[in-house]
Amino acid sequence: MSDVVFDKIAIIGIGLLGSSIAHATHAYGGAKQVALWDVSEDVRSRAPRVVHGAVCDSVEQAVADADCIILCTPVGALAEVTQALSGVAKPGAILTDVGSVKAKAAEDMAAHCPDVIHLIPGHPIAGTEKSGPEAGFASLFQEAWHILTPLPDQGAGYNDAVARLTAFWRGLGARVETMDPARHDRVLAITSHLPHLIAYNIVSTAYDMESVEQGEVVKYSAGGFRDFTRIAASDPTMWRDVFLTNKDAVLETLGRFSEDLAALQRAIRWGDGDTLMREFTRARGIREAIIDAGLDTAEADFGRRHLDPDSET
Amino acid sequence: MSDVVFDKIAIIGIGLLGSSIAHATHAYGGAKQVALWDVSEDVRSRAPRVVHGAVCDSVEQAVADADCIILCTPVGALAEVTQALSGVAKPGAILTDVGSVKAKAAEDMAAHCPDVIHLIPGHPIAGTEKSGPEAGFASLFQEAWHILTPLPDQGAGYNDAVARLTAFWRGLGARVETMDPARHDRVLAITSHLPHLIAYNIVSTAYDMESVEQGEVVKYSAGGFRDFTRIAASDPTMWRDVFLTNKDAVLETLGRFSEDLAALQRAIRWGDGDTLMREFTRARGIREAIIDAGLDTAEADFGRRHLDPDSET
Repeated sequence: MSDVVFDKIAIIGIGLLGSSIAHATHAYGGAKQVALWDVSEDVRSRAPRVVHGAVCDSVEQAVADADCIILCTPVGALAEVTQALSGVAKPGAILTDVGSVKAKAAEDMAAHCPDVIHLIPGHPIAGTEKSGPEAGFASLFQEAWHILTPLPDQGAGYNDAVARLTAFWRGLGARVETMDPARHDRVLAITSHLPHLIAYNIVSTAYDMESVEQGEVVKYSAGGFRDFTRIAASDPTMWRDVFLTNKDAVLETLGRFSEDLAALQRAIRWGDGDTLMREFTRARGIREAIIDAGLDTAEADFGRRHLDPDSET
Repeated sequence: MSDVVFDKIAIIGIGLLGSSIAHATHAYGGAKQVALWDVSEDVRSRAPRVVHGAVCDSVEQAVADADCIILCTPVGALAEVTQALSGVAKPGAILTDVGSVKAKAAEDMAAHCPDVIHLIPGHPIAGTEKSGPEAGFASLFQEAWHILTPLPDQGAGYNDAVARLTAFWRGLGARVETMDPARHDRVLAITSHLPHLIAYNIVSTAYDMESVEQGEVVKYSAGGFRDFTRIAASDPTMWRDVFLTNKDAVLETLGRFSEDLAALQRAIRWGDGDTLMREFTRARGIREAIIDAGLDTAEADFGRRHLDPDSET
């Protein structure tokens, strides 16, 4: 049990991330009280059966007296939610989020966040392909990176708030780092956003191939494709918002990806085995870098676990 | 222990697949004697420490008196190896392979295979990203599909040979199906070959992004990228040959993939959230088809295990 950091936290959005924060806070501590709210009445009705904490009828009720408000909505909803809670949030409270894009998230929240609230955008590098309140589990954040992108030059009170939020996430098991939001968005564009786009795309392409039966695609998918279908099972709304709000970094990364792929395509068409061999050997090197960095044992297992909790069994 | 199907099998090429066949035959039966050979002297010197069976000094020695010869080389080497053994293979013996491409593999082997040998091309849908004789393990083929692409209209002796080869692979735990080689190559182009090409490519693209440190790519890769690095760690020689020998099906599939990706790219650039939402939701459907087909429990675990034996622990 970690120390109590906050008397009350409010979790807005009870999906995979929101419900996991509630589970983790119940399991490891960090707050005396947890209040939750979700825009969906259906989710609010299902949530009490699976999460620990008080599921509220309104965002105002959830946020009232909270020391820390954690927005767990898709990135596209952050502006609206911040506006809704701006009149009721307690002065001195922390407002943070879990969005996969940080520059636009910070901008949208800042536009509606009162000066008396400490806005500290954040992003846990953790998740599974599941969604909904039933998907949450307490150990999701264990050993996972949690990136905070604090605003610059905000003074001592703000720095103290960053320290408290850091302590809260560490209490849930995360390894907390701070980063510039633009840099975060560039790094995540290649490590997470592009891989998800590619996975969605390859599954769609397979779906449309009339020369191949869908049953066969499913049946013989052990050799690579099944990993892609798992990634492509992730929440469509969340990912739509990621691509719309990290547009520049994703398009830049995607442009490079397509150029590189065109070069491989040309090598295949012209039977240029040397180019294929060189590129494949080079790509293999990054995997070795991961192993050399010791990231392929416990840490990689966490990665796999985060992507698929079923594989723990 | 399954029944003895063959008195002697010869395994040519002692990599992941060849050594796994030796392990599996030792563990589950199927042959009284196993002889192995590899073109690499280094591999021949390492193999006796890790595989069960007689590691021979020449392909002729390994193949002599074998009832079944299993070629486990890269697809590009099949013609040459078949030529080398054509003078010594026992009349009535079976010649098969484990290549990921079947039309070109069948053609290359047929060009040098004597009429008295039963040529039955094959492909186990099983593997990991590891390579070399040390990577093999006995359970690799358990519950995995094994596709045979028999030649048409070869008569009763040939049909009996197909039945014996089927029994041998079933004894190692595989589920055997027969298929037309061209169809096999189209199905595998989308379920395996394209995913591997994409994985190699995205890892290369990440490697070259000067705006992102390689350390960061590795560090924050839990969110999708790490699965790609694992796939991209696969044997470069094997995959070069796959793309060179399944050129038409891969280029056709890659063309469709690129068209579809361009449509997603355009949707991102123009902020067309409806298109993204529709495509992502559709892609998610294939995952649900896998779950509905009951492929996401034991079978998917086998898939994951085949891709990464480390995750068994």
